[in-house]
Amino acid sequence: RLPHATAWVSCGDVETVVEAIRSLRVRGAPAIGIAGAYGLAVAAGEAVRGGLAADAARAHVLARAEELATARPTAVNLRWAVERCGDGVDRVPTGTSARDLSAAIHAEALAIHEEDRKLCEAIGRHGAAVVPEGDVLTHCNTGALATGGEGTAIAVIVELWRRGRRFKVFADETRPLFQGSRLTAWELVQRGIPVTLLCASAAAHLLATGRVAACVVGADRIAANGDTANKIGTYGLAILAEAHGVPFFVAAPSSTFDLALDTGGDIPIEERSAAEVLRPAGVPVAPEGARAFNPAFDVTPARLIRGIVTEHGVIAPVTREEIRRVIAPRS
Amino acid sequence: RLPHATAWVSCGDVETVVEAIRSLRVRGAPAIGIAGAYGLAVAAGEAVRGGLAADAARAHVLARAEELATARPTAVNLRWAVERCGDGVDRVPTGTSARDLSAAIHAEALAIHEEDRKLCEAIGRHGAAVVPEGDVLTHCNTGALATGGEGTAIAVIVELWRRGRRFKVFADETRPLFQGSRLTAWELVQRGIPVTLLCASAAAHLLATGRVAACVVGADRIAANGDTANKIGTYGLAILAEAHGVPFFVAAPSSTFDLALDTGGDIPIEERSAAEVLRPAGVPVAPEGARAFNPAFDVTPARLIRGIVTEHGVIAPVTREEIRRVIAPRS
Repeated sequence: RLPHATAWVSCGDVETVVEAIRSLRVRGAPAIGIAGAYGLAVAAGEAVRGGLAADAARAHVLARAEELATARPTAVNLRWAVERCGDGVDRVPTGTSARDLSAAIHAEALAIHEEDRKLCEAIGRHGAAVVPEGDVLTHCNTGALATGGEGTAIAVIVELWRRGRRFKVFADETRPLFQGSRLTAWELVQRGIPVTLLCASAAAHLLATGRVAACVVGADRIAANGDTANKIGTYGLAILAEAHGVPFFVAAPSSTFDLALDTGGDIPIEERSAAEVLRPAGVPVAPEGARAFNPAFDVTPARLIRGIVTEHGVIAPVTREEIRRVIAPRS
Repeated sequence: RLPHATAWVSCGDVETVVEAIRSLRVRGAPAIGIAGAYGLAVAAGEAVRGGLAADAARAHVLARAEELATARPTAVNLRWAVERCGDGVDRVPTGTSARDLSAAIHAEALAIHEEDRKLCEAIGRHGAAVVPEGDVLTHCNTGALATGGEGTAIAVIVELWRRGRRFKVFADETRPLFQGSRLTAWELVQRGIPVTLLCASAAAHLLATGRVAACVVGADRIAANGDTANKIGTYGLAILAEAHGVPFFVAAPSSTFDLALDTGGDIPIEERSAAEVLRPAGVPVAPEGARAFNPAFDVTPARLIRGIVTEHGVIAPVTREEIRRVIAPRS
């Protein structure tokens, strides 16, 4: 219901967790993973409340794990987090009571959450060291609503602000779904950071005015050569930034790299529903008979990216070698 | 009410004409001018119906002329067209009956309309000769809803289609006011030309797919060096087109040139209401406290424009010399 109302959904059983993931009440890869992990803790809680014996409790939790892991089939983080909690179950000796099993899973979920929070913090810290002074332009939503901490690109902005730097954030409204207006602007207003929304069509003119010192965006998937898939509009913004000599940064955890992908050309681009274009904010603006082109993502070539900010440091220049040097030893 | 309903407003008196101009029922510089000219014919009709004597009829028409000319203060075409009809009044000998005065003004208004129709036709013809085969990408609305004929950029598209060339038109939805979705798509659907809408954020990805053979857009004002002011988003699109080797054409009548402006830097950029960004299609999507950057126009430098299509021919390359050669002798 953001940005007009904030509603908290309390998930006391696994059905509610699955429904929250399925209906996009939780969105953003890291946040979905964390929700899945806590979902398994909720499953263990069900076993405790149901007074299940040790074996039955374990069976209950593992059955629920599969349900949680498949709540969104393409969410890699979700399966990863649920399986990590499941591995926690495996490490607990058979015969462990439902209550102790629950405590173990709960601890693992908290650890996953805490790791993500620290990862956001590290991205914020590394990014703050390289983003030049001045106003920042960002795209889509990459903040606390999508992660366990302050996000990725937004974490950099929040960290700069926390250090006392003062500037304005220009946020692309991010058609078709307005994540910039609905989510990013809301997060920044919450933190008292001045935010100015613009349509993607105004970005070139804004850059030409010289008011933007840097662009910082997130990433959905990064190939071995640094080509970056992210929300539609990122690639265009990177071209415009280069045309105006404005540095373009990507902020993303090392888990976003898919080193099995040689270049961005190997990243498939999903096309989404035409209705998102033809009915902005649910209002039909186009005539019957008009079609729509609505790719969900685009791929920004590495050469347009000044640096990729990860939790291990900044990859710059963005080359295969630098990526391997910063990422590979630890992933 | 486009694109969902078509409603015709019949203007039997000057008040209704002025109201139609003021409330943007008529929009597009040429269409506004034509409406003003017909408005003066309506004023003469009032004099006839009121049984006014020759002198009173003339006085009535000239009083109404000022009302019409100021219905939209910044519309240069409006004053021009109304004054041209007013000059027609001056040429009629004193003592001419209301009926004859009305006939003279009506003829002048028809001539203005017909000239605009022919001008659109000539732009269409010249443009069709230079736009390469393949799909076309356009921005905003530049068609029959804005002019006395088939428009400017849209006239080129319509003429190509009329000649039997088959292609698809990609139309930018044109945030913030969705003229692409509401008007351009409607015009093309009416003419049976396939139209696919996209958000501005998807243009770079579309161009990267290689499916677009040319971009064709309109213009609001062109400086002596060819720098072109047009609807916000035009400049960004021109940069993206160049980055992908796609030729970028501007289609505009010679009256769009303002040779008193040395370069585009002299063109003032009006900023419009924040609500257009914060409330797309009337729906509030942004939180309280968010601001908006909403320039109405941007300026595309001449170097990004492959050719400017005018009623006198195509200006290419876009240089001061070529502009003077094609435009100046006749304007």
